[in-house]
Formats: sequence, structure tokens, C-alpha cells
Amino acid sequence: MLEKVVIFGVGLIGGSFALALKRAGAARSIVGVGRSPEAMARALELGLVDSVVASPAEAMRGADLVLIAAPVAQTGAILASLLPHLEERTVITDAGSTKADVVAAARRALGERSAQFVPGHPIAGAESNGPDAAVASLYVGKKTVLTPLAENPTAYVARVAAAWEACGAIVHRLTPAEHDKVFAAVSHLPHLLAFALVDDIAGKPHADLLFQYAASGFRDFTRIAASSPEMWRDISLANQGALLGELDAYLAQLTTMRAMLAAGDGAALEGVYANARRARRQWTGEIEAAEAPPPRNDAE
Amino acid sequence: MLEKVVIFGVGLIGGSFALALKRAGAARSIVGVGRSPEAMARALELGLVDSVVASPAEAMRGADLVLIAAPVAQTGAILASLLPHLEERTVITDAGSTKADVVAAARRALGERSAQFVPGHPIAGAESNGPDAAVASLYVGKKTVLTPLAENPTAYVARVAAAWEACGAIVHRLTPAEHDKVFAAVSHLPHLLAFALVDDIAGKPHADLLFQYAASGFRDFTRIAASSPEMWRDISLANQGALLGELDAYLAQLTTMRAMLAAGDGAALEGVYANARRARRQWTGEIEAAEAPPPRNDAE
Repeated sequence: MLEKVVIFGVGLIGGSFALALKRAGAARSIVGVGRSPEAMARALELGLVDSVVASPAEAMRGADLVLIAAPVAQTGAILASLLPHLEERTVITDAGSTKADVVAAARRALGERSAQFVPGHPIAGAESNGPDAAVASLYVGKKTVLTPLAENPTAYVARVAAAWEACGAIVHRLTPAEHDKVFAAVSHLPHLLAFALVDDIAGKPHADLLFQYAASGFRDFTRIAASSPEMWRDISLANQGALLGELDAYLAQLTTMRAMLAAGDGAALEGVYANARRARRQWTGEIEAAEAPPPRNDAE
Repeated sequence: MLEKVVIFGVGLIGGSFALALKRAGAARSIVGVGRSPEAMARALELGLVDSVVASPAEAMRGADLVLIAAPVAQTGAILASLLPHLEERTVITDAGSTKADVVAAARRALGERSAQFVPGHPIAGAESNGPDAAVASLYVGKKTVLTPLAENPTAYVARVAAAWEACGAIVHRLTPAEHDKVFAAVSHLPHLLAFALVDDIAGKPHADLLFQYAASGFRDFTRIAASSPEMWRDISLANQGALLGELDAYLAQLTTMRAMLAAGDGAALEGVYANARRARRQWTGEIEAAEAPPPRNDAE
């Protein structure tokens, strides 16, 4: 049981973490901190947190675990504001969608105290956000990726992992660089591509006609283009190197397919389409099996 | 009431058309024709059609309306096989996803009898196909685009429109060229892009790791990459010119965004993302209003 959990940013991600810990009986007291007085008041009203405090000093006193669930570009500044109040007993983690930049910011902000920061990324979300979007079940059966630092004591990593497991998440580990390369390919690039398509169509003189005939395939393809522009600007810049690499590979792929199309090479196009369908079918089968809860350890 | 409707290809599209006409009491007799004896037997067993026949001559005798719901590349050959049995009373339509190529094939196959062919495209579908996927409600509230020919008598176009309206569809009209340009942008290009992304990822040495972390955003973005490779090969080639134009515009868009990303120009990226989200939000609001059934004409 964690005596005191502190959450910076009690919206969808932070609020759901709080609800899930409470439901699991894994935290005695949960304290919320945030920039928006309205959001913090709402988080308190919804029962996401037991109390809200304005000062980092008060928040950090006696904290076992701190989750930073704020836009990724703010992580360094938040960590710097916590450092003067950081006790030996406290472990900090985050929920940012990029990790190499967060690690760099954490080491800059915390110096040798970076041993107390265990970076993390819950692979869960929704188009909605804010305290009202929080639900206790958000992480059940979903992966949370931790990217521990060489200087993290094992017990600190275990504390963060146990908290996510109490929320129902399946904890995986990657290095920060592995993490960023993986998510550049399967998340950051698709977001950029979806934003690009909608902006491309919206900019055409006959955009109204085009949108009139867009149907369910277009709707699903562009669903992620309803995401927050500010958040995705920050993620794009934070993972600039890996994202550029994935974008260049994709541009090369499209250029190859353009040549197939221009040459009327139906067999080559069909080969790409068939390979994609085969890979996707295998994935949808495997992902369902992989997201089932793992066997429980008797010692737990 | 149509006395006799003939459907070439009684799968998802043709079978749902048959069920919907039956439910509306709009057809006395529905005859199925197809290349696969198993599929035709299943269509009969499921009650999608009243009878199945093997010969075009028998099928066409006394037909009021013929729907060709076969892969778009087969339309010309099917029309040619029907021509010797085409009575004056019969109107033929199709359900192909491209229209300029279908019109050209129809004029080649039918010659001056092309007046009896009214091209169409129901904007409805599903990832599943075959007779078992057919449902009477598939077209309810969905658009069907007709692209009438200059030589089509008004009454013929009206007969096809009335059949789709009996199925619950909202009938729109475009020229074949307009149709192909619109669907290149909002359907054919997104399909190519989704196939391209999955194939790109599947070809990387660490593909297994990547797929392991793909989540709901990726699943929705790539849902259309589960579509039939053969069907999308045919559509890509049939709409080659318009699709190349849309692909080139998209490549230019990505190249611009790549430069923003490489320059670390967060404001420019955020501008694209924000414009896309704004346009998509407006669209999702409008599409819901537009798909409500139109006011009924008193004369109907």
C-alpha cells in the first residue's frame, strides 16, 4: 500500500491512474497538483483525488510515488520545481509519449537525484481529455512501458511497476531509444499522416464536395487527426530524429508505390496490398492474445 | 414494384440490395447469377434471392432491373455477355467503386445500347464479404452516387434511383469524372496509404517489436488495410489518373511537413495539425446531419 501518491495533472491519464489505484486499494491518500484551478476543483469534486494543493513543497512532503501526467514539454520544469522538496523516500515517474527527451530533461533537472526518476508511458488514451474523461478501467489489459535508467535502484522500478499493475496494466520494459523508435513508427508517424491527409483535403478548392462523400473508411483512418494539436506538436519535436527516419522510410515506400501505379503494374501493387493485409491480420490476432492479462505470480 | 430484378454477384453488396428490395416490397422476383456455384447456393439458402440461374439468357428474360455487383474489372465482360439477351424493357446498373472506366467499358460492350446502362456506386460496405455478410439495412441512410450518361432516358435513371431509395439510400448525382476525383481523394488514396504503412512496418527487421506496441490509433488508421488486395488493385488501376494526382498532392504535403519537422518549426506543424482537427470536427458534425434521410417528396 502506498501511503501518499501525488499526481501532477489530473486529467484523463492522471485521473484514471488515481481512480484505478483507489479501486485497487493500492493508495491511502492521493494528492492532485495542477496549473488549472478549475480542473483541480473538478478533479476533487469527481473524487479522483483526496485533496488538491497549490505548493510543490506541501505536495511532496512524505510522498511515496509522484506521477507527472502533464504535456511532455513541461516535464523538465515540473521536475526542477520538485527538486528542492524531493525526499529520499520518493520515486517519481511520468506518462509522457516520448522518452529520450524526458530522460535528458530529467537528468538536467535532477542531476544525481535522477536515480529517483523512473520514466514510463502508459499505452492507453482516448480522444477526450480532462478530469471528466477519467475512468478506473482505462489501463486494464493495456501495456505500460517503463524505460528505467541505469541509475534507478531496482526497488524504485518495482514500485512504479507495481502501481501500474495495480491499475490493471501489463508492464513492459524498453530502453528510451527503443521506445522512441517503436512509437515513432506505430503512433507518431500515423498521427502525422492522418493530420496531413485531412489538412491536404481541407485545403483543396472543392473540399466541401470531398468531405460530403467521405465515409467510414475515411472516418477511421483520420480518427487520430482529432487529437490535440499542441500535444502532437510537442511529441513530434520531442521525437524529431526517430520520426524523421520513419517519415523518410514511408516517403520512400510511397514513391515506390507511385511508380507501380504510374506503370500500371497491378501485380506489384497487389503484392504490397496483400502483404499488408496478411501482416495486419496476423497482428490483430496476436494483439488480442498479447493483451490478455498474464498469469499471476503466486507471491503477489 | 419491379417484376424481375437480376443480380450478378450475390455477396455483401448484391445480397444486401436483394434483401433491402424484398423488405421494402419493391421487387416481386429476384434472380441471382454468379461465377461461384457455392456462393449462389448459399445465397439461395439464405433467402437473398428467389432463384439462381446459370445462363445469362434465362436470367435476362423479362428483367426490369439488373445490378452488376461483381469486381469492377469484370463489368465489361459481364455486359458483353448480357447484350445478346438485353430486352428493350431492361435497365442495367452497377455498384463499382470507379465510374469513368466502367462507363468506357459499358460503351465498348453495349455500343448504342449503353442508353440502358445507368452507372452507380453505393457508398456502403464492410470488411466482411460474401452472401453471409449481406444485411437488409446496409444502405439505410447511406449515399448512393449515380453518374448517369447523356444517353440515359430520364425514366431509366429514375428507375435505378427509386430502387436505391427503396433500400433506404440517399441518391446523389455526379459526373463519372467528378465521382472518380472525389473518391480518389477520400477513399482510394487513404486505402493506398494504409496498405503502404502496414507493408512498410512489416518489412522492417524489428517488425515484431513494432506490432507488439501498436495500439488503438494504429488499429483504426489501418483498418482499411484489411480490405481485399484484388479489389483494391483493380480500383487503383481503374482510377489511375485521379489517384496519381491525389498521391502527388499528398507527397507534396508530406514533403512540406518534413521540412517543418526537420527545421523544428513547432508553430508550423501545430498550424497543420490544428487546421486538420478543425476541418475534421466540422466534417463529423456535418456528415451526421447530411446522412439523415431527406424530406420525402409528396408525389412519392
